[in-house]
Amino acid sequence: MSELTVRPVTGIGDVTPGADLAALITDAAPWLADGDVVVVTSKVVSKAEGRLVPLPPEPGPERDAARDRAIDSETARVVARRGPMRIVQTHHGLVLAAAGVDESNVDRSLLVLLPADPDASAAALRARIRALSGVDVAVVVSDTMGRPWRIGQTDVAIGAAGIEPVRDYRGGPDAYGNILDVTQVAVVDELAAAADLVKGKAEQVPVAVVRGFRFTASAEGGARALVRAGPEDMFALGTAEARADGLRRAATLPDDVPLGDGDLPQGAVEHALSMVDTTVDVLSASSRRVTLRPGGDPRRPARAGADIHRLRAALAAAGLASTWTDEPGADAPFGTITVGMPAGIASGAERRQ
Amino acid sequence: MSELTVRPVTGIGDVTPGADLAALITDAAPWLADGDVVVVTSKVVSKAEGRLVPLPPEPGPERDAARDRAIDSETARVVARRGPMRIVQTHHGLVLAAAGVDESNVDRSLLVLLPADPDASAAALRARIRALSGVDVAVVVSDTMGRPWRIGQTDVAIGAAGIEPVRDYRGGPDAYGNILDVTQVAVVDELAAAADLVKGKAEQVPVAVVRGFRFTASAEGGARALVRAGPEDMFALGTAEARADGLRRAATLPDDVPLGDGDLPQGAVEHALSMVDTTVDVLSASSRRVTLRPGGDPRRPARAGADIHRLRAALAAAGLASTWTDEPGADAPFGTITVGMPAGIASGAERRQ
Repeated sequence: MSELTVRPVTGIGDVTPGADLAALITDAAPWLADGDVVVVTSKVVSKAEGRLVPLPPEPGPERDAARDRAIDSETARVVARRGPMRIVQTHHGLVLAAAGVDESNVDRSLLVLLPADPDASAAALRARIRALSGVDVAVVVSDTMGRPWRIGQTDVAIGAAGIEPVRDYRGGPDAYGNILDVTQVAVVDELAAAADLVKGKAEQVPVAVVRGFRFTASAEGGARALVRAGPEDMFALGTAEARADGLRRAATLPDDVPLGDGDLPQGAVEHALSMVDTTVDVLSASSRRVTLRPGGDPRRPARAGADIHRLRAALAAAGLASTWTDEPGADAPFGTITVGMPAGIASGAERRQ
Repeated sequence: MSELTVRPVTGIGDVTPGADLAALITDAAPWLADGDVVVVTSKVVSKAEGRLVPLPPEPGPERDAARDRAIDSETARVVARRGPMRIVQTHHGLVLAAAGVDESNVDRSLLVLLPADPDASAAALRARIRALSGVDVAVVVSDTMGRPWRIGQTDVAIGAAGIEPVRDYRGGPDAYGNILDVTQVAVVDELAAAADLVKGKAEQVPVAVVRGFRFTASAEGGARALVRAGPEDMFALGTAEARADGLRRAATLPDDVPLGDGDLPQGAVEHALSMVDTTVDVLSASSRRVTLRPGGDPRRPARAGADIHRLRAALAAAGLASTWTDEPGADAPFGTITVGMPAGIASGAERRQ
């Protein structure tokens, strides 16, 4: 690897809707060369593309309401909330405070939204830079993001063109011959971070150029590929929101949950029983099903019922499904509970693999 | 802002326990100058400090068990788990897969732990570089971390010396006179990311130098300041873990939860009632207390009891506390539920501020 340089592009000035951002960049940086990575702050891309929303310039409920409406329109789903602050997933798949809607570095009568399609913005800028100056650069559109677990923000790539966004070391050997099995470096995010070191927040330096970075060119790529979503996302909700969701699941747990065919994980039923202070007998047990007989004081049947629901919530917390019939039997005054794996999950043991 | 350069330090070679890492760096980079930021991969710091654990070189259960023991010893608490993969918070406060315990770029008979105190490691390296070569540099100790919501890893700072870890723009004006109220840039993380662009994973280039970055010198600083923990951490648990915790709370919800004096948020009780399909009457309501009379079929009292617990879980999901007495009253065959704010929380309205 050789040295790289990160150079601020000064003199771009204010960017207004309809501006030819590529022309502003090539005029301010006539030294652009093939293989450079041009990192552009999303805010100037948004301004050039007219992604602006008018709002009352004076602080107050009307300004707040206009801002809330803008955030709502950019939000696909809320991830976490604290007081008036919302962390949301945007329509792009990005997880951001206030959906990336920003009041800084813009006239007080305007809000800036993120570009509608930052990868397309990056591709268009790249093509236009090539048309204007003949140089073949990669383009990264950056934005500032907070992170769980760590104080402070860093810049990351929300759009990219002409560069493979991830450098994948998986399957390759290290210097000791060990196979690297997890390392995928988000190089476009590291480029955005490096560029931020020369851009600053309060100065009008919205563009920086990284020279000397040997990247893999890509006609496709795009920062969209960095969005981790669906079952791969282990942090789809804030802790308070997920905990409330667990409580809601307990509140709405139906009597008749479909039971699957998977084998019950060793000890899981016992673990759930130990969580709840109530009397219960095991009537029968196989690898896939356990039938329980809840006990309790026959003079306090409502309490027995509440404890049955506690027990079923404990089973659910352990990843188990249960059904309850309250039909009293000869020997089972409060009915029986049947426990199995949730339908659609092969087995507890396999889930752990 | 002016240009900065990021330069790999080549020729350091293998680092062994007891090695004088500062000497290896100053020998390989005799061009080090005042104001440079030396970014050192944590792995070579750990190797020099002897933070190594022997383990059986052959794949198999013994190697896995030794690795698990090493992870356990580095773990303060488990944040999330998926199959055999654990994301944990280490004793340093860092949230990392496998507690940062690493098998790559080391002999197969050894595991590498993170440095015990990476800020102290950075400070010691900085002092020793100054003693050896007379130059005053900042030192960042970096490690590779995954991120929620985004594919791929980036390098971040786990230790730092001689540099303020965060650049704080809060309270300052932007070019439009808006006050920047949230921006705190984690500059040491951006420096680690920039350095990673020239270090690579598979090559033996564990050190890079950033020159030209105008940072705030700090005698204290330290990357420890970047750890966000406690109530500020909105993602203390994985979604599955927090949801299971909510179910466990429902399972263990006592009858007699202490009620606080805060005002109930408008509509919160109604919202919770709407979640559960059961009959319930409001006996009395004030700003701080609502008393409910659960209904139900008197011939199926256990079911009424289960529905009472469902309702209390729904109230808890809405952030409300409740007590239940199953003492039947004249008009209340299944007792009464009293709802309030949890003790210690001033009011629902204030919580939203």
